[in-house]
Amino acid sequence: MQIEPTILKGTRDFTPKEVNKRNLIFSKLKKVFEKYNFDNIETPILTPAETILGKYGEEGDRLTYSFKDNGDRMVALPYDLTVPFARYVSSNFNRLTFPFKRYQIQRVWRAEKPQKGRLREFYQCDVDIIGSNSLFCEFEMLKIMIDVFQELRLPNIIIKINSRKLLNSLLEKFNVSPEQSIGVIRIIDKLDKIGVIGVKEELRRNGFFELDSLIDLLQPEKYGEDTLKKLKEFEIKEIVQLFGYIRNLGLDTSKILFDPSLARGLDYYTGIIFEVISKDLNVGSICGGGRYDNLTKMFIDKHLPGIGVSFGFERIMLVIEHLEIKYKEERNKKIIVLNFDPIATNYALSAYNYLLERGVQTEFYFDVDKISKQLSYANKKEIDYVVICGGEELHSNKLRLKNMQSGYEKVLGWEEIVENLL
Amino acid sequence: MQIEPTILKGTRDFTPKEVNKRNLIFSKLKKVFEKYNFDNIETPILTPAETILGKYGEEGDRLTYSFKDNGDRMVALPYDLTVPFARYVSSNFNRLTFPFKRYQIQRVWRAEKPQKGRLREFYQCDVDIIGSNSLFCEFEMLKIMIDVFQELRLPNIIIKINSRKLLNSLLEKFNVSPEQSIGVIRIIDKLDKIGVIGVKEELRRNGFFELDSLIDLLQPEKYGEDTLKKLKEFEIKEIVQLFGYIRNLGLDTSKILFDPSLARGLDYYTGIIFEVISKDLNVGSICGGGRYDNLTKMFIDKHLPGIGVSFGFERIMLVIEHLEIKYKEERNKKIIVLNFDPIATNYALSAYNYLLERGVQTEFYFDVDKISKQLSYANKKEIDYVVICGGEELHSNKLRLKNMQSGYEKVLGWEEIVENLL
Repeated sequence: MQIEPTILKGTRDFTPKEVNKRNLIFSKLKKVFEKYNFDNIETPILTPAETILGKYGEEGDRLTYSFKDNGDRMVALPYDLTVPFARYVSSNFNRLTFPFKRYQIQRVWRAEKPQKGRLREFYQCDVDIIGSNSLFCEFEMLKIMIDVFQELRLPNIIIKINSRKLLNSLLEKFNVSPEQSIGVIRIIDKLDKIGVIGVKEELRRNGFFELDSLIDLLQPEKYGEDTLKKLKEFEIKEIVQLFGYIRNLGLDTSKILFDPSLARGLDYYTGIIFEVISKDLNVGSICGGGRYDNLTKMFIDKHLPGIGVSFGFERIMLVIEHLEIKYKEERNKKIIVLNFDPIATNYALSAYNYLLERGVQTEFYFDVDKISKQLSYANKKEIDYVVICGGEELHSNKLRLKNMQSGYEKVLGWEEIVENLL
Repeated sequence: MQIEPTILKGTRDFTPKEVNKRNLIFSKLKKVFEKYNFDNIETPILTPAETILGKYGEEGDRLTYSFKDNGDRMVALPYDLTVPFARYVSSNFNRLTFPFKRYQIQRVWRAEKPQKGRLREFYQCDVDIIGSNSLFCEFEMLKIMIDVFQELRLPNIIIKINSRKLLNSLLEKFNVSPEQSIGVIRIIDKLDKIGVIGVKEELRRNGFFELDSLIDLLQPEKYGEDTLKKLKEFEIKEIVQLFGYIRNLGLDTSKILFDPSLARGLDYYTGIIFEVISKDLNVGSICGGGRYDNLTKMFIDKHLPGIGVSFGFERIMLVIEHLEIKYKEERNKKIIVLNFDPIATNYALSAYNYLLERGVQTEFYFDVDKISKQLSYANKKEIDYVVICGGEELHSNKLRLKNMQSGYEKVLGWEEIVENLL
């Protein structure tokens, strides 16, 4: 029985070109993370369901792929990399040196209806520091975000900064109880999508009738100084301190915006929060995160403050593709030894063997075929040089080297050819 | 509610050290595959179940993780990389240039009872050539296997070679019908586990009473020449031809063994088959594969001959660990700027910022702490140099650089320190 060779919507095949491009971008992220001495870990994909379910609220549970394995145990696929990281830290608590700085680049899954920009299987790239309360961690995260987008040649970004402590102190002033605050924050988080009027309406629908002036107060002023001034009676100490570091150490302030309306939907944030948007393409946030004070408490009784940022790899790819940014890929020259003259096949095979053994990236055209078909194959495969060995070359014990870009050919001895190719 | 931070048996966390080591080994495999101009692809993990189930026989189906997604569609996790590759080639048939040479390194899953050497989630590394009948493909696969194990510094291997055509011609001679032959081949495949006597018994139990002399005939002689001689009336043409290339091109024949008893359990092989064992550690085959003539026929009506080899990454790791092989890892020097004197914290932070901006891999000790604790952290993190900035350094506008290996310290200017570290 023949089966349709389809893949699931929201999942993707990656062609060689795509793999190369994506790996190049992953390596740029890694380069930055490693410059800051972050270590790379990997966690399992097949996961006990109870370590994932119940961590992201009702919607998260609904969007988690979970199922019974053959041993009737509930298992699941990771929804993000934050909870698997908290689980990793908890499992390995006694073996780790804190502060533990790790990065992680892996696939995650969402059982969503696939649509543009919404996939079922995609990559996330997370950096976290766990085990330090210092505001220098926030500063480092900022530097990492700036460096990553610099490295990717996407300088046209805005990093929005806010503080959950500030939001909470504002909410308190407006008589929102601590229990209600995450609900209100989730509504404020929709400002980008539904605007000021929409948020005010939704707040009223949810029984919050006197928050209009709060929402107005959250709008950033033209100058950060003015925003700080109007909020000076609230919890802005950390924001002030962080902007102090930013200015003293010469970070590019044109990219950094204090935005009191930045909320972020997740309830585990406790301090400074971040979100990055691209000014080149409206794809929502391309990076986001913040300080969380106790993510491991779901697993162990240890107080571990942390901070983390997640790079939205797929959305970043959309911006890169929109801007048609080409990165210089360092690759070896590719060579093919043609095989068109039966009497010279063994000679050609020896040439292929000789080049490989001297470290030249070489393939052999396996089946004797018309030279034009072989050159067309070489073209499609973006091969740099072809080595032509026919009867003539066999008799003179030489090899003919053709540059596929220029079309230029020269006849060379075996050793000379290696010198030309390495 | 607190949840036990466990992972599923047969799955693994990879610590930074393990990730680094494994990535180093992956990069060695990739280096060889790319030297032969193989391209890298990736296929989805979440897969429509019908493209996986029914492809590996009854046991394969039982060992495949499959489940219903939220849309009531049956999905599965890949059992290996061969069927996803056949599906990829079928899906992308019109866009590919043949022969298509690809490698793929991804996780696969088996719903097994985990035990030593048997995992539920593990990596496979596959190389395949699809679209050529030439025996030069077999020769290339051999070269790749030799190169990979050379690159991994595991020279102590035996590559067993046999031919399904030879096996089939022998089985025909012994009156085994084509329908029965895969059953007999699967029993012969157990020779390594249950020995000659065990195989003969199992054959008899399955109704094959006259195959004793076949089994004896399959044993390789001391010299390959003699093995060939005793089988000369059977289908040995390809074996003879392949050994011709091996000898003519000077491959290391001490590593290559013609073993007529090599069977391999999978029923899709049609020509030359391979299996690699380590002479250093008995872990079964560490690599295996062979020619298959029409793997894509399960998906499309195109005749596509192919050949592939799968490297058993996890078993290869067992051999590497058994032999305690250390690979030279090229990494940048790691630096930490200590933070122990509150009056110099801003000075230290500037030094950290300065070093990072000049490309030095630097971290900052976030929390002001005792210098001994910070040095112990640097030790555990295998940091190469610490930069010490206390009041004294602040006043002289210098930095003190300590080599963590030698203990040697020197006081340097800011620019000098960068020269010392890059």
